[in-house]
Amino acid sequence: MSERVIIGRDLCNSSDISKTLSDAIGKGFEFVCVPLVHPRFKREFFNSETALKERFLPLTRSDLTLISQEWNSNVVGKISPWIDLDSKIEHVRLNSEKAFHEEVNYAQHLALSCIMIDLKKRNCLNLAKNVLQHISNKLTPTIWIRVPLVSRSRNMNLFGDEDLTEETEDPWDRWNTLHLTCSTSKRIRLALELTADLPDTEGILRWTGEPVNALIIPTSVFILNKANYPVLSSVHQKVVQKFMALNVQIIITGYHRHSVVSFNTYLQYIQHLKSKMPAPTPIEEHSKGFEDYLQDPLQPLMDNLESGTYEVFEKDPIKYKLYQEAIYHAISDRVTADEADTRETVVMVVGAGRGPLVTASLIAAKRARRIIKVYAIEKNKNALVTLRNLAADDEMWRGRVTVISSDMRTWEATEKADILVSELLGSFGDNELSPECLDGAQRFLKNDGISIPESYTSYLCPLSSPKLFAASSSASLPFKHPQSGLETPYVVRLLNVNLLDKPKPLFTFHHPNHQKPIDNTRYKSVSFRSPKKSTIHGFAGYFFSTLYKDIYLSTVPESHSEGMFSWFPMFLPIRQPVVVEENGTISVTFWRCQSPRDVWYEWCLTEPVNLGIHNPQGNAYKIGL
Amino acid sequence: MSERVIIGRDLCNSSDISKTLSDAIGKGFEFVCVPLVHPRFKREFFNSETALKERFLPLTRSDLTLISQEWNSNVVGKISPWIDLDSKIEHVRLNSEKAFHEEVNYAQHLALSCIMIDLKKRNCLNLAKNVLQHISNKLTPTIWIRVPLVSRSRNMNLFGDEDLTEETEDPWDRWNTLHLTCSTSKRIRLALELTADLPDTEGILRWTGEPVNALIIPTSVFILNKANYPVLSSVHQKVVQKFMALNVQIIITGYHRHSVVSFNTYLQYIQHLKSKMPAPTPIEEHSKGFEDYLQDPLQPLMDNLESGTYEVFEKDPIKYKLYQEAIYHAISDRVTADEADTRETVVMVVGAGRGPLVTASLIAAKRARRIIKVYAIEKNKNALVTLRNLAADDEMWRGRVTVISSDMRTWEATEKADILVSELLGSFGDNELSPECLDGAQRFLKNDGISIPESYTSYLCPLSSPKLFAASSSASLPFKHPQSGLETPYVVRLLNVNLLDKPKPLFTFHHPNHQKPIDNTRYKSVSFRSPKKSTIHGFAGYFFSTLYKDIYLSTVPESHSEGMFSWFPMFLPIRQPVVVEENGTISVTFWRCQSPRDVWYEWCLTEPVNLGIHNPQGNAYKIGL
Ligand SMILES: C[S@@+](CC[C@H](N)C(=O)[O-])C[C@H]1O[C@@H](n2cnc3c(N)ncnc32)[C@H](O)[C@@H]1O
Ligand SMILES: C[S@@+](CC[C@H](N)C(=O)[O-])C[C@H]1O[C@@H](n2cnc3c(N)ncnc32)[C@H](O)[C@@H]1O
Repeated sequence: MSERVIIGRDLCNSSDISKTLSDAIGKGFEFVCVPLVHPRFKREFFNSETALKERFLPLTRSDLTLISQEWNSNVVGKISPWIDLDSKIEHVRLNSEKAFHEEVNYAQHLALSCIMIDLKKRNCLNLAKNVLQHISNKLTPTIWIRVPLVSRSRNMNLFGDEDLTEETEDPWDRWNTLHLTCSTSKRIRLALELTADLPDTEGILRWTGEPVNALIIPTSVFILNKANYPVLSSVHQKVVQKFMALNVQIIITGYHRHSVVSFNTYLQYIQHLKSKMPAPTPIEEHSKGFEDYLQDPLQPLMDNLESGTYEVFEKDPIKYKLYQEAIYHAISDRVTADEADTRETVVMVVGAGRGPLVTASLIAAKRARRIIKVYAIEKNKNALVTLRNLAADDEMWRGRVTVISSDMRTWEATEKADILVSELLGSFGDNELSPECLDGAQRFLKNDGISIPESYTSYLCPLSSPKLFAASSSASLPFKHPQSGLETPYVVRLLNVNLLDKPKPLFTFHHPNHQKPIDNTRYKSVSFRSPKKSTIHGFAGYFFSTLYKDIYLSTVPESHSEGMFSWFPMFLPIRQPVVVEENGTISVTFWRCQSPRDVWYEWCLTEPVNLGIHNPQGNAYKIGL
Repeated sequence: MSERVIIGRDLCNSSDISKTLSDAIGKGFEFVCVPLVHPRFKREFFNSETALKERFLPLTRSDLTLISQEWNSNVVGKISPWIDLDSKIEHVRLNSEKAFHEEVNYAQHLALSCIMIDLKKRNCLNLAKNVLQHISNKLTPTIWIRVPLVSRSRNMNLFGDEDLTEETEDPWDRWNTLHLTCSTSKRIRLALELTADLPDTEGILRWTGEPVNALIIPTSVFILNKANYPVLSSVHQKVVQKFMALNVQIIITGYHRHSVVSFNTYLQYIQHLKSKMPAPTPIEEHSKGFEDYLQDPLQPLMDNLESGTYEVFEKDPIKYKLYQEAIYHAISDRVTADEADTRETVVMVVGAGRGPLVTASLIAAKRARRIIKVYAIEKNKNALVTLRNLAADDEMWRGRVTVISSDMRTWEATEKADILVSELLGSFGDNELSPECLDGAQRFLKNDGISIPESYTSYLCPLSSPKLFAASSSASLPFKHPQSGLETPYVVRLLNVNLLDKPKPLFTFHHPNHQKPIDNTRYKSVSFRSPKKSTIHGFAGYFFSTLYKDIYLSTVPESHSEGMFSWFPMFLPIRQPVVVEENGTISVTFWRCQSPRDVWYEWCLTEPVNLGIHNPQGNAYKIGL
């Protein structure tokens, strides 16, 4: 990875902010974190004789010391550490409230992008309430909540600040309480502090599901290598790189401890770690910019796909190879080598799009030395233009391919197929109505004919992702109830997400389908177990499809077809974040429902709590037949 | 109570519905509950050779056997008892689904008002899903879910039906799961069956918080009295009357068991029980028609009250007596008997409305034989018309009362008061901004002056009420987010509600207030314990106000001022129903918040789960200053 990481410097004080900033920039930092108000300027508004007098002193340094562009881009304002909005002593709390609002208002006056608040107590209700008060105002800076990976009392003490002592329980729990109390607002993010002690793997993974914007690295966590250079232990390196993958900014905090070398060395080391990260996989490369971005699922049956969409499909380096392999084996099995020159195999590509599976069929036949006749059935009139041109002009196609303009569910075929090839799969397997289309098409498949794919199964996994929850909850669907955004599935490249268990199978469909009458509704409950106390925000959806015998396509993490990028996972939110305890059970029931016009899913979390059936009657989301 | 109760007859079969109905009406019943389809007509849609043949038989009796008015008013349709939507055997489930929809559709075709479903299993997810499918259609009859008070397996067996055997766990739990899964839909109600065994008091109370529409009484629960008449035991009588108070209908089920007397006797006995109920209290009388009806709280400061509203206030038989008593003691204490003829007491009624507290002051002075001078301060120009007329014409007022047209917060008084009398209390105590008004008025109260009231405290209690939850969730606030109905307080006469603990004090205000600077914001957490597993839907709010020394006004159930009906309680909902376990803790935090223009409450349930801060920044509800 060639891009550099943005690094800032955390300071406990700055008497001359202009000098502090230019010093830091000189060393290669891009921003500084400084207190909004001088640490020793503690204000008394309540229960104090001097209350009124002190109010005439200026609160802090003048805004003229920097230009507005600098305030906005290069300064993170830190809220005074003595502020304790949850103090049990009333005048401390009331003083803290006044001081807090004064500081936040001043940060807003300076148009800072971020302010940072150190979260030291589990009881943070009143902090939450006072933070919420500001973030309903769009001009308020983003709030960075500073929490250590593991409780700091087990770790070093940073500065000699006049500080609240920190409570010792799990900092994640503390953060989670704050964020839940703020109704999972997306304007509240994490500035996570690396600690000498580290949580276990699941503890780290849990943090990677949270909206971490910055990773704070104390100089005290560095150790000296043989050449006397400050470096991180190899476990710490891995953790830092895990967060770098989430595009966090880095903040260096603490004194210059390793005096043999210049302060600069810390920065160089961080950039070095970034550059050592593995090169992006094809999937990462392909999905750049789409991470955690919610897309409405395509409806290729009801709508017509665009040219650009087909183009993206066709770039997949793996999918067509696997199809070609499956077709190759099916053709080879269907006609023995003896009959290879005499028996023709009829291959029908249903939903041919712009033809890549037709080409794959032709190449497979050539490799297998079998004679084939190909039909390309497609209902999208625009894609048919491409198909007809290929049939007329392409050397391999000419004379071998018959293009049919029809919906496969109603086409009256003149002969029957040996092999039906299709790719009508959505991110959740059946969600683009492959079952309904193929059930319609199997009328023209021979009794012993083969369908490629022969089956597909959707997979489900509970996940935690405040980011996706917040995005869904404000996803506005025109003319629908505002809450419908939480009862709709999305296609999304999952990044800032923590899976709470391994994915499990949900609904399976087989083709051809000899059931009478065919029933494509489904109903199933699945249970999971969360290894840690976590907050559930919804479910990830994947699929596994057997093309032919042991050749398969999969987006399920454990069996993902390497390098295949045609499908991002699905995200199915729930109405309300739900906390599950360590080792707690998560149960969900899914229905696949049908009306004469539509298909849709309904889902209901039932454990740890029952949230009610989501998307009843497809009120928020349905797929048109 | 003179009104009669509506009684219906439950039957396991009816071969001639027209005769069945006229027989029942002849006996004094007003409706019958009959199966929608003949019990022996079990249909097979799946996995059956005969599937297609049977479909040509008519489903059930013709709709011509009754006129539409009768179907609509006199018949409750019962869903076939063999239908098992949650069967683990797939073809049973699929058959059940088809049959269920056929029956519900037929009930809708007949325009029945209700259909009844017997809930026998705890796993009722798929039943919930299929019920939801119908109730999004406004034409679908109301769904009555039939459940026994305690599990029937501990009780008698009713008919020899081809029946599912019932599961033994708590029927409330079963019902609660169904209702939660249906997102607490208000179209799903209870038909609760009285059983020989009864739950404990808290178990009964829990049912009275549920939306019970009908109480089913099996003939087998009756016992014979000395005169050989079927009667209910005295505990059963109390339970029946508890539900009668919720205006339920009664359904008699089971055979005619007590053959010495005619079937009629059961009905007469039920009507007798109804007539024996205690006469309505003044509060019940006064609030008739307002039970569980959500009203927006008044804003007497920002808005002007109407004449009719004052008129309703003035009808309270208790409130003014208590004020008069308080003023009487205050005046007597203020001036010794020696000075009674020489020292004048200045009483200022602030927010005088149409003058009842002025009159109360004058009567109190007469009783105490003290000289008083009364000021009546009011900001509502319309009420001032009444006050000015009284001051000119009323014999007791003339020469003694000065009427002032002003906001008490800004009036420049020409002399100071000995006693400030006001009634600016809302259902939640301070919610009509009494603190802010009186803090403004105390400028013209003598240093040793008295405020009546001298203090008030709001009280809070968690409650269960699917009915109030459903009503709040569909309360539409113009131009606001649809969910804001769940973040707004309401004034409501609570009836179909179960309090989950005793009310506890929240915010207290004292007058005169010598704090400097005065701070009327508040912040407090309160915890409760639920004696049973229950579902929390919000909080009831009350107040207790000390007028003077030991004279008080209270709407808190334990100390309610007898006969006083001026204030209904408050209801503060939560966003989502939350299940609390038996003996589980319920914690909530409340804030009273202020801006220069408004006052509002924010609240956050934190235990058993954290639902996020409600009404942040007063986005859904605020009170104008
Ligand atoms: C996911 S695309 C696959 C296109 C191409 N086979 C590929 O793999 O690149 C599915 C195609 O099936 C077509 N399609 C979907 N339902 C169809 C139907 N019922 N009849 C005919 N074509 C259909 C769509 O228009 C679309 O071109
Ligand atoms: C609840 S009513 C009570 C009226 C009457 N005292 C009674 O008990 O029937 C409150 C009255 O106070 C008046 N009021 C409220 N705020 C006021 C203010 N700041 N200044 C003057 N009057 C006020 C209202 O207009 C209303 O008439």
